[in-house]
Amino acid sequence: MLNWKQEAGQRLAAVRQTQPLVQAITNFVTVNDCANIILAAGGTPTMASHPQEVCEICAISQALVLNLGTVDDFEAMLLAAEQAERCHVPVIFDPVGAGSSKLRSEYCARLIDTRQLSVIRGNISEIKSLAHEAADTRGVDAGAKDLVTEQNLSQTIEMARRLSAKTGAIIAISGALDVIADAAHAVVVKNGCPEMARITGSGCMLTAMLGAFCGANPNHQFAAVVAAFGTMGIAGECALARILERREGNASFRTHLIDAVYTMTPEQLNEGLRIENF
Amino acid sequence: MLNWKQEAGQRLAAVRQTQPLVQAITNFVTVNDCANIILAAGGTPTMASHPQEVCEICAISQALVLNLGTVDDFEAMLLAAEQAERCHVPVIFDPVGAGSSKLRSEYCARLIDTRQLSVIRGNISEIKSLAHEAADTRGVDAGAKDLVTEQNLSQTIEMARRLSAKTGAIIAISGALDVIADAAHAVVVKNGCPEMARITGSGCMLTAMLGAFCGANPNHQFAAVVAAFGTMGIAGECALARILERREGNASFRTHLIDAVYTMTPEQLNEGLRIENF
Amino acid sequence: MLNWKQEAGQRLAAVRQTQPLVQAITNFVTVNDCANIILAAGGTPTMASHPQEVCEICAISQALVLNLGTVDDFEAMLLAAEQAERCHVPVIFDPVGAGSSKLRSEYCARLIDTRQLSVIRGNISEIKSLAHEAADTRGVDAGAKDLVTEQNLSQTIEMARRLSAKTGAIIAISGALDVIADAAHAVVVKNGCPEMARITGSGCMLTAMLGAFCGANPNHQFAAVVAAFGTMGIAGECALARILERREGNASFRTHLIDAVYTMTPEQLNEGLRIENF
Repeated sequence: MLNWKQEAGQRLAAVRQTQPLVQAITNFVTVNDCANIILAAGGTPTMASHPQEVCEICAISQALVLNLGTVDDFEAMLLAAEQAERCHVPVIFDPVGAGSSKLRSEYCARLIDTRQLSVIRGNISEIKSLAHEAADTRGVDAGAKDLVTEQNLSQTIEMARRLSAKTGAIIAISGALDVIADAAHAVVVKNGCPEMARITGSGCMLTAMLGAFCGANPNHQFAAVVAAFGTMGIAGECALARILERREGNASFRTHLIDAVYTMTPEQLNEGLRIENF
Repeated sequence: MLNWKQEAGQRLAAVRQTQPLVQAITNFVTVNDCANIILAAGGTPTMASHPQEVCEICAISQALVLNLGTVDDFEAMLLAAEQAERCHVPVIFDPVGAGSSKLRSEYCARLIDTRQLSVIRGNISEIKSLAHEAADTRGVDAGAKDLVTEQNLSQTIEMARRLSAKTGAIIAISGALDVIADAAHAVVVKNGCPEMARITGSGCMLTAMLGAFCGANPNHQFAAVVAAFGTMGIAGECALARILERREGNASFRTHLIDAVYTMTPEQLNEGLRIENF
Repeated sequence: MLNWKQEAGQRLAAVRQTQPLVQAITNFVTVNDCANIILAAGGTPTMASHPQEVCEICAISQALVLNLGTVDDFEAMLLAAEQAERCHVPVIFDPVGAGSSKLRSEYCARLIDTRQLSVIRGNISEIKSLAHEAADTRGVDAGAKDLVTEQNLSQTIEMARRLSAKTGAIIAISGALDVIADAAHAVVVKNGCPEMARITGSGCMLTAMLGAFCGANPNHQFAAVVAAFGTMGIAGECALARILERREGNASFRTHLIDAVYTMTPEQLNEGLRIENF
């Protein structure tokens, strides 16, 4: 039996030891939080996004994160992803707002069809949109009709497996129940709390962290994704405990969330991770 | 007699209930804070600003926020505002730095002359500049000579009324004394504290929140503006109390300010709002 | 003997008294923190970066900060720096990532060769790259091989002096040991802590603060640079004490850092500054 739970701590320890350089081409709304959470996890961020330099910087990076939040940098994303393939750098793609505009849907299709992606992380509405299923996207958030529940869980896993078979990427869907699947494996991670949706950038930050975890664990990509999701979810639980104790709001929640990643230990991750194999 | 004070709590409650989708085309300096304060108030932010997608996203939004802080997105603003008119979506305009450069003055004039705006929120120097009165702008801040005092208050209200008559928008001027006026009504809100000017983005955040309040209260626009100003001012007072108690600075003030919007109750807003009719 | 230590407090007091308008053309990753730390120090930030307005705004500013973090605004930087020379406004340049791509190296060379800079602040790898010495840049961070130690200190000071002679600018290198030198003077500042490298933007924030200090002290540029470095380093020490006490992480560190600049007194700066003349 695969024991992702006990392996998670090792994946986090590898981030701390190797301090992977993570190149992120990402949106201007949450870029600062993305850089700080990469640092909190133990990685080193670089957010260069100019088409004339992304290839040079990709060549010395351990992971490439592409976040479609603001779509201006799409040409740079295509160039960097091509370079990443040449340099065997894993590419983590976040299809922010997929399905909410034709432009985004078109960009997503082009990236998926022409570039090799290692991990695709989105909310359920975004992932359904990529899989050409009817989705209930609302701006950059998942629609209420799409939410993953115990009832539609096996259906969601099947969709993720099909999309993984088609794209070659690990499909990672975040929500109250996180679904992570590739052609061979599928797990559900049950950490986290609803308050994570009351700050901007929870999803972007998780994607950025995936860069650090995948970059530090080139031979354990699936376990790295599981560990990153666990780290984020447990950090959310810690942050919630703090704001309830201090009667604070979402701005403090964000600070505590990043702090909790910074102070997370491998032991804490192994103990806190709530995961089921499918 | 109009009782904006007792109505304010209802307007906040409507934001929490309807969770309006607020599209904000805004500057890169304060965009993260704007998104987080929309979430704190109870709205759902989307910051898409590409000319090829703003119309699609505007069509499903309950409010459109246009913030001129960085002027690169002006074409997208024009397109989105046109779409908003077609879709009966209220447009909140923040003329950041109006009067501080020819480019900004020209952009402001073009937007006001050709698009239907619901609310214009600025500091006194920016609003004077829009009204073609001599203004003492200093970068993005109001100049010392322009400050609204009990002495020049009725003059300021008259200017706001004239600008409202000309533009069709509610004119909302923030400062130590906030002035809110349209052709029919005028009020002064006296909440807040000077520390709000010691963080970047107080004004931008207030404008973003106006999107949430106006989007959730389509038939009560003036009351929605009053409620948003009250929420921001009282949140500032709460944040000040916290930093004094803990000997903190402006970075903590920003966090407490957003937190205080998140934890604000309708009752607290009704009780704390200090307002006078004119 | 030059007594920078006792003069530092006066330089900080001048920032508080004159509230200099600081124009910063800077990257989107850390722009919000840069604006807030300028405010914390006592300055007034304006982040306008459109080529059509930077000259107008520069003309009323007391300092111009150019940060190459994201390279899109390079044309605006050239225009603004030219205007700054005409208006006798000091220019503070941060060559973020110099040496990490050909584009950045080319832009740095062009700016240094054609514009008059007052201060150049970077990490040791960036400064070595500008001085055409072999550098060990890693993304936007200094490489391990480059770190300034007691052993290579006099060598580093010599390099800074040569670069200052060539460029006419004060050369300010931040790290565990900060080196500040011009043709006539050289000092080492020993404040700060390693946690400053675990947040994004420590360097950018220091550069932004240099704008406030240099803008407020036109006739004491070297002392202003020393005072800004001391303020940042001592603030880092205060922030570290707070996170250790509260078991917090890097996100809280960032907040405490800016807070500590906000609450810094001239006396605290004079007492805390650890400096050596060379």
